[in-house]
Amino acid sequence: MARAGSKSSRQVAGRAKKIRLLLMDVDGVLTDGRIWLLSMPDGTATEMKAFHAHDGAGLKLAQLGGLRTGLITGRDSAATTRRAQELGMEFVYQNCAQKTHAYNEILQRSGLKDAEIAYVADDLPDLPVLERVGFAVAVANAAPEVKRAAHYVTRTPGGEGALREVVEVILKAQDKWKRVLRKARA
Amino acid sequence: MARAGSKSSRQVAGRAKKIRLLLMDVDGVLTDGRIWLLSMPDGTATEMKAFHAHDGAGLKLAQLGGLRTGLITGRDSAATTRRAQELGMEFVYQNCAQKTHAYNEILQRSGLKDAEIAYVADDLPDLPVLERVGFAVAVANAAPEVKRAAHYVTRTPGGEGALREVVEVILKAQDKWKRVLRKARA
Amino acid sequence: MARAGSKSSRQVAGRAKKIRLLLMDVDGVLTDGRIWLLSMPDGTATEMKAFHAHDGAGLKLAQLGGLRTGLITGRDSAATTRRAQELGMEFVYQNCAQKTHAYNEILQRSGLKDAEIAYVADDLPDLPVLERVGFAVAVANAAPEVKRAAHYVTRTPGGEGALREVVEVILKAQDKWKRVLRKARA
Amino acid sequence: MARAGSKSSRQVAGRAKKIRLLLMDVDGVLTDGRIWLLSMPDGTATEMKAFHAHDGAGLKLAQLGGLRTGLITGRDSAATTRRAQELGMEFVYQNCAQKTHAYNEILQRSGLKDAEIAYVADDLPDLPVLERVGFAVAVANAAPEVKRAAHYVTRTPGGEGALREVVEVILKAQDKWKRVLRKARA
Repeated sequence: MARAGSKSSRQVAGRAKKIRLLLMDVDGVLTDGRIWLLSMPDGTATEMKAFHAHDGAGLKLAQLGGLRTGLITGRDSAATTRRAQELGMEFVYQNCAQKTHAYNEILQRSGLKDAEIAYVADDLPDLPVLERVGFAVAVANAAPEVKRAAHYVTRTPGGEGALREVVEVILKAQDKWKRVLRKARA
Repeated sequence: MARAGSKSSRQVAGRAKKIRLLLMDVDGVLTDGRIWLLSMPDGTATEMKAFHAHDGAGLKLAQLGGLRTGLITGRDSAATTRRAQELGMEFVYQNCAQKTHAYNEILQRSGLKDAEIAYVADDLPDLPVLERVGFAVAVANAAPEVKRAAHYVTRTPGGEGALREVVEVILKAQDKWKRVLRKARA
Repeated sequence: MARAGSKSSRQVAGRAKKIRLLLMDVDGVLTDGRIWLLSMPDGTATEMKAFHAHDGAGLKLAQLGGLRTGLITGRDSAATTRRAQELGMEFVYQNCAQKTHAYNEILQRSGLKDAEIAYVADDLPDLPVLERVGFAVAVANAAPEVKRAAHYVTRTPGGEGALREVVEVILKAQDKWKRVLRKARA
Repeated sequence: MARAGSKSSRQVAGRAKKIRLLLMDVDGVLTDGRIWLLSMPDGTATEMKAFHAHDGAGLKLAQLGGLRTGLITGRDSAATTRRAQELGMEFVYQNCAQKTHAYNEILQRSGLKDAEIAYVADDLPDLPVLERVGFAVAVANAAPEVKRAAHYVTRTPGGEGALREVVEVILKAQDKWKRVLRKARA
């Protein structure tokens, strides 16, 4: 694994350069890992999630830079569905006990190769996908096993802008960052 | 940009002195940037926001000091509508993909000049407005591009009282702070 | 103002010794100051508050120790009503623009004197009451004006157990802490 | 009490080795102690809790390692009921003013001895159970009285993965950790 500025940062840039699709887990990555359950009057409970505006702005930059985006999560909630729509995500796989099934389907649908895909992860169920993609990213608060398997560990924790940091790393490696920032203001 | 107490604090005071209208972004400024989505039984999701009581008290001081207030945000929610009402805001623009449109309309409706307006910002979509106003403020957790464009960077992060800090800076520059504190207790 | 262990801690103990009624503000004291608004399908928004289990346990110790309890808040919500019931509070005043009115009524109803009342506060609207009570407490994250007016500033921020710290200070000053801890386990 | 790596860590391992059932409190242990109350249109308030995805993954590892799990809490909410179901818990006791009653019933139903049970706690009402179990754990943010009564204090605060840390301590003491990690990926 490498942090920005470390000696292996050139290797990170080499991997990031090839990315065409940015995939991610949800809980602990687009959120800080908290799973909010609200008690309803009928005795059931409904789920709430806390996404971050900085990640939203970052994922819009990703799209301006031509990156495709998607998520694979073990849970299933209307909150994630709505956020994925707001962020214009192309691949949305919820309720995935086995993340590799979803990943294989995404490979086929997208027509991309492993080396062209990045995956941002925080915990053990992410490992099988993380070890296949070209650019494996762990968030700052990921489990140690996940950090060890990653090419890059973000400085920002999940749910506080980690995705935006990843977008910046990829777009800078692809020499698109400044152009995209200008586009974002037009 | 300047922090309170830095050598350019006199320049900050000069800009703050002229302010008649305090405008702000919502997510990341009046909140800490988290966008809460609650899954509803019908499969939709509804939005929650976390405002701060200290900002509420600060914005009441602003009004006691004769400042007009308003917000411009890219999102749209009943939570923001209610908070703006509670805070007695005069200008409320939600759902603004392009913030300059709203800003131009506010200029016209208020009869004020750029130099008389402050804007508090945290992210890239704020830049076009931020570069026009007389007193450009970035919150402590703003994107680096926004901090660079600001005349003043708050010590307090968005959603934890940053707005109250801005109100204090402005009212102190206008020699109104102590009088307003006395009024607030009457 | 004094922190635990400072030279004026004897003065704090002297004031705490006389307390019979523990009053408090809500937002920023029993919560961390965040005001959560949830957008509802009908276009209104409803309020959520985050209380802390440690304060709940602390206030139960207060009652075991014979202290009466109550709150005075400028806002009005069913969340606060329910929490006050859970905590067995005797005096519950919501929607108080002027906190002194509520305070005067509490004085009369309780039959107590200023010196027998503690008030825990965080912001400017609390000052008029804070300056009258026998034991004036500011939470760690209170406004500087409130800290200056307080006899004691908690180490714990509001919403994270500040009230429990105050209960411990009072019950220790009254030599009741150990007995109450034993009672709590019976 | 002992922290991982301290001189008494061998004693901790000795206790952890025998554990067959992992019991826990909810507020402050599976959550960070915040009790969220949402005001409802009919004037009541409903409760929300924030669990953590890392604890969820940890408790799945516990089950892969053959540990039985359960909770004992003084409060009662649909949020906790749902989370306990998601986590496949065998023993779920809510609304327990006296936790020892529930504990005695669990002893009987499970057919286990005190020495085979771990309990994770944060506050005073947990003490009577904590002092009976074979492996008594306090979370990082527990009350001092609870930390003193514990054999092990987690590095992670409640609600941020403390339970997962406890699972790792137990499964490592039982030489099952690596095998369970491999199983989790299969």
